[in-house]
Parts: sequence; structure tokens; C-alpha cells
Amino acid sequence: MPRVYVVGAGPGDPELVTVRALRLIESADVLVYDRLIPMELLKRAKPNAELIYVGKEPGRHVMEQGEINNLLLRKALEGKLVVRLHGGDPFVFGRGFEECSFLISNGVECEVVPGVTSAIAAPEQFLIPILLRGVSSSLAIVTGREDPGKGFREVDFRRLATSVGTIVILMGASEACRIALELIQGGLSEATPVAIVTRAYMENSRVLFTTLGELAKCQVTIENPSVIIVGRSVSLSPLYNTSNPIRH
Amino acid sequence: MPRVYVVGAGPGDPELVTVRALRLIESADVLVYDRLIPMELLKRAKPNAELIYVGKEPGRHVMEQGEINNLLLRKALEGKLVVRLHGGDPFVFGRGFEECSFLISNGVECEVVPGVTSAIAAPEQFLIPILLRGVSSSLAIVTGREDPGKGFREVDFRRLATSVGTIVILMGASEACRIALELIQGGLSEATPVAIVTRAYMENSRVLFTTLGELAKCQVTIENPSVIIVGRSVSLSPLYNTSNPIRH
Repeated sequence: MPRVYVVGAGPGDPELVTVRALRLIESADVLVYDRLIPMELLKRAKPNAELIYVGKEPGRHVMEQGEINNLLLRKALEGKLVVRLHGGDPFVFGRGFEECSFLISNGVECEVVPGVTSAIAAPEQFLIPILLRGVSSSLAIVTGREDPGKGFREVDFRRLATSVGTIVILMGASEACRIALELIQGGLSEATPVAIVTRAYMENSRVLFTTLGELAKCQVTIENPSVIIVGRSVSLSPLYNTSNPIRH
Repeated sequence: MPRVYVVGAGPGDPELVTVRALRLIESADVLVYDRLIPMELLKRAKPNAELIYVGKEPGRHVMEQGEINNLLLRKALEGKLVVRLHGGDPFVFGRGFEECSFLISNGVECEVVPGVTSAIAAPEQFLIPILLRGVSSSLAIVTGREDPGKGFREVDFRRLATSVGTIVILMGASEACRIALELIQGGLSEATPVAIVTRAYMENSRVLFTTLGELAKCQVTIENPSVIIVGRSVSLSPLYNTSNPIRH
């Protein structure tokens, strides 16, 4: 039975891909890949492998999701070993599930190979605890950018504010100021520590420590891709410092 | 400067370790490891590497955390390449942060190598979406077993119930029934779909699909280690079926 591998490529460092993912990349006939994967991984493909870029940038898609689905299906039905490579983990704000569902409903097997998600790796690069005994027993991972087609906001930051110990926001760069305000309105103190990790495990990665109150003033410019971490445990990082960005 | 590597070993399948973790395992002089790591990885250590088991089982610790910290410090100061191997990811309910903090405050560098966490991998093994456009834009990862020393429950399941789209509970086997009840009291419908993934990516892994209402009846026996996934998107898995456990 034809099968597609939907694979997480990890947060950015090519060494943070799993052994299984690397083995699949090396044996793929067709490699369908995203914008935020470590591009060095493509060098590990077979010389005659077909590499197809289907990256999505804010406001500009090389290929619509329906086309990607059809591409995966067509290549699998041709008998090719197809690897669909997602940045991070394929089910954490990737479209890995939609791809698998489509393939399965068309008679093609789908195997998911999980990857290290930047939601968890980004704080770790800068030694920021996200879960810590006595401080935080719960973690929320949310998107800062919601599907406008839904017509409502599923992430209610006011409600989330005091429901978990730590909040990790992906794709929140452009909405950070509004989100900070809503978290304060929801009951978090303006002094709540915040870390903004930019380009985790890529070149020129860095962290900026600040507070919710500062972030809510709309004067912090945040580049993509960034991971925003909010919660009391952030200030326990040995690197914690609210004055200067730390670069690694 | 001496340095310790605090490394995630992934959810259970030895191929779901990262390339970097594997390279460190292969070059370690001292490998300090947990109960839930894929034991096959130990075969990759150098023949003369020192392998030290420090696993914790409910109610029975081979070594207290303070002793583990001191062991890591001592071995690092002896000039050894020390790798501390955690199941899953070292900052997701591991003690990786405490270890790093202790080492840094004693003049030893600490580098974290993130791993694939079972919180995200377990649902993926059975094609269960945890985040899905139009259905769930937020995910909470929580522990079902809290530190009794805290004297209060940080995870307020009643409040969490309607704050996020999907709730993933680790170490929740013994408390699942109480947690289900609290989630219902918090406003989730008894019909809310639940998946219980046992031994994700290990031998004899399986999933049981049920509902919050059924779980709250306290008649479901859950083995360790299990990951419990609660939320509307669970029923969208192509494997969804509430009658029989599915084994892989």
C-alpha cells in the first residue's frame, strides 16, 4: 500500500531532527518541504530525489493546501517514497493532520514522525523553565495568529491568563501587544516576566526578557519567527535580565 | 569549562531521539539515565562509558534529586563528558531545569538538548489532531500528579476545562477519574471525546477512545505510562472508535 511520511524537521538546527526523520530524508524519492525547515537537511537527500518547495509566508503561498494534498497523493500513487517535511512538529500548527486525513481517505497510508517543536525547544535554548515543581504545573501552547475564516477568536487570552502556569505563544509577533494587554485584563500582573526568543536554534538566535506591562506598551518590535513565553517561571532562568537582548 | 549535556531521549522509540542526542550518547564518558528512556540507546555508548541509572518510580527513588545533582557536578569536575538522559524532553516534567540551575550555580556549563515529548508524540502515533484549524487553536499540557509538597493544586481542571481547545494530561493514570469529573464540573460536556494512549512509541502501544462521561465513572483502568487527550478534535482521528482499544 502506498504510504506518505509526514515528518517534523525540528526547530531549526539540523542536528535536532530525529534519527528516523533523517533516515527518511535520505531515502525519499520525493521531498515536499516547508519554509522553516533547516535547509541543510535537503543536502542529505538522494542525488536524484525530487525536492519540492511548498512554503507559506504570511500573505503569500507558493502552493495552496489543496494542491499540496493532491501533490502528495499523486506522488504516492506513482509508487514514490514521499516525505512531507514540516518545520518543528507536523501537528503543532502545521497542516500534517489535514494531509494525513486526505491521504487516508484516498487509500494512501500516512505515518507521522513527530519532531521537536519550537514551543518547547525555544525556551530551553535559553534555559527558561516552562514547567517547574512548585512554580508551574501547566503549560499552554497557543497561536497568536488565528484563522480569520473562523469568524471568532478561539484563544481567549483573558480567560487563559490565570488558567495555566506558563503560556507559550507561537506566531505571535504581530499580535504581541494586544495579547499582552488581554493577559493583563485577564488578571496577570504587569510585572509578569516575558521572554521573546527569536530564531530559536537557527543562526543569530536571541532572547529578550521583558514584562507584560512593557510588552503592552506596543514599543517592542518582534521579528519572525519568535516564540513568546509568559509566566512566573521565566524569571528563574539563569540568563534572566530585563535590560539587554542575549544572543547565542 | 566543564559542561553537562541535559538531553531528551524522546518518547520511547530509539529512532525518535535527535541526531545531536545520539552523537552525545555515543561520545559520553558518563551517561546518567532515567527509567523511561529507550534502553537500546545505552548500547550506543562507548564500551568504557560509565552508565548510571537514577530512575524514579512512583514511591521509590533509586537516587534523590539532590544526589543526582551532586553526581552530575562531581563527574563534570572530574573532566568527564557527562550526558544526563531524560525520557521525552528534559523540561517537560523532567528535572532538567533544576539540574542545569544547580550546575551553573556551581560553575559548570549546562546545555539542554530538547527531545520529542510524548505529550505531542503520543496523540500523533494514533493520528489524533491536538491543534486543528477551525477546531482547536490552543493546547494545554498538564500533569495529573502534583507535588504534594506544594499544599495546593496548581492545575485547576475546572477552570482549565473551557480555557483551551485540547488538554493533554501526563502522569494522569491514577487521577483520571477525578480529573474527568472536574472537567465536567468545569463546563465540558460528558460527550467530550477522550483518547488514552498507553506506551506511546514503545512495544505494545495502544489507544483507547472514550468520553469524559465514561471516564468519570471510574471504571476505566489506565496503565502507566499513559497520555490522556481531551477535546473535540480527538474524534476527528481516522482511528476514532469508542468500542475497542486499538493496538499498534
